[in-house]
Amino acid sequence: MKKGRYPLNSEKKTEKNIVWHHATVTRERRETLNKHRSVILWFTGLSSAGKSTLAHAVEEQLHQKNCRTFVFDGDNVRHGLCKDLGFSAEDRHENIRRIGEMSKLIIEAGVIALTAFISPFRKDRDQIRHLVSQDDFIEIYCRCSLAVCEQRDPKGLYQRARAGEIKEFTGITSPYEEPENPELVIDTEQPLTECVDRIMRYLYERGVLRLST
Amino acid sequence: MKKGRYPLNSEKKTEKNIVWHHATVTRERRETLNKHRSVILWFTGLSSAGKSTLAHAVEEQLHQKNCRTFVFDGDNVRHGLCKDLGFSAEDRHENIRRIGEMSKLIIEAGVIALTAFISPFRKDRDQIRHLVSQDDFIEIYCRCSLAVCEQRDPKGLYQRARAGEIKEFTGITSPYEEPENPELVIDTEQPLTECVDRIMRYLYERGVLRLST
Repeated sequence: MKKGRYPLNSEKKTEKNIVWHHATVTRERRETLNKHRSVILWFTGLSSAGKSTLAHAVEEQLHQKNCRTFVFDGDNVRHGLCKDLGFSAEDRHENIRRIGEMSKLIIEAGVIALTAFISPFRKDRDQIRHLVSQDDFIEIYCRCSLAVCEQRDPKGLYQRARAGEIKEFTGITSPYEEPENPELVIDTEQPLTECVDRIMRYLYERGVLRLST
Repeated sequence: MKKGRYPLNSEKKTEKNIVWHHATVTRERRETLNKHRSVILWFTGLSSAGKSTLAHAVEEQLHQKNCRTFVFDGDNVRHGLCKDLGFSAEDRHENIRRIGEMSKLIIEAGVIALTAFISPFRKDRDQIRHLVSQDDFIEIYCRCSLAVCEQRDPKGLYQRARAGEIKEFTGITSPYEEPENPELVIDTEQPLTECVDRIMRYLYERGVLRLST
C-alpha cells in the first residue's frame, strides 16, 4: 500500500514501513451501541424438549427490550451453511463446529446468539465453550423426560426411530449426554412463560442485560 | 408438544393439531429497530487492492451513524469457520460458498455484512448474488492496477508468487475475472476518504441508509 495515501487513524506502520489496516469497530463499541452484552445462549436437550420454541420465545422478549438477537436452528443452518453435511458422526461433529464458529462471529458482531440444537455430546458442547471466553457461553439444558418428548413428537421422529427407520436417534439408539455444569437447567415440562422468565432473570443477574434496558 | 401448554402468540396448530413454534422476530423487525436496511457489501479485487482497508473504513463510518455492521475477511474466517479448507479450486469454492451463507444469516440478523475477499471468479460471486434477494447484494469492485498492487504488496505475496513460491496466485498465475455489472466500481488508487464517501453516498441513494440517520 502506498505510504501516506490512506490517511486512516486505524492504520499503523509495521517494521517495514508498510501501511496496514486494522478494524476500528470492535465488539466493545458494538456492545456500547446496543446497550447490552453479546453472549451465546446454547440450548441443548432431546428432540422435542422445546429448545427451538424456548429460544424463539426468549428472543421475542429480548427484541422487545431492543436487544440484537439471532436464533440458529436446523431450519436456517442445515439448508444453508451446513447443507453439504449428512448425519454421520463426523458430519454431526463438523455441523456443531461450524455452528460454534458462526456463533463466535455473531457475538463479535454484538448480537446475542441463541442456538437450538440437540448437541448430545458433552465433548462438542465443551469445544464451543472453550472456543469463546468463559463469560460468553451460557449452556441451557432443556430438561424434559423422554416420555414427554415422545408424547409431543410433532414431526413423528420418535415414532420413526422406534420403528427403526431412523438410525442413531438421540435418546433411542444414540446417547444424550446430560450437561454436568450447565449455567441453567430449565424444566421444559413447565409452562413456556415460566421457562422464559427464568432465563430473562438470569440474563439480568449475569449483567448481559442492564436493569435500565 | 403438549397441546395448550405453550401459550405463545407465535404458535399455530398444524393439520395434525400439533402445536408448532415460529420465529416472531423477523428481519423486518430488526431493520426497524436498527433504523437501516441490512445488505451485503461484497468487496472484490486483486490482492492489495485495498478491499479490507476500504471495508473497515466504511464500517467505521457506518458505526458512527449507529449502524450494525460486521466485516468478514481472511483473518476471522480462514482461522475459524473455514479452517478445514485449503487453497485447492474446490476448497476455494467452498470457502466462498460458506462466506455467502454466513453473510445471508448476518443480513437476516439485521446487520450490514461487509466481505473482503479476492473472490476472483464471476461464477462464485454470482452464486452469492443469487443466494439472496436482488436488493441485498451490492458488489463493489475495488479496481486497482496490478502494477500498483505489486508495488504495495504489504505481505510480500506478489514477490513470492513471482518467485514461484505461491501457486495459482490471482493476477500472476491465476485469473481475476472482473465484475461485468457491479453495483459500484471504486478506483482504489484514489485516496481512501474519496472511496469511502462514494460508497456512503451510494448507500443513501439506494435507501440502505436514511437521510435522517
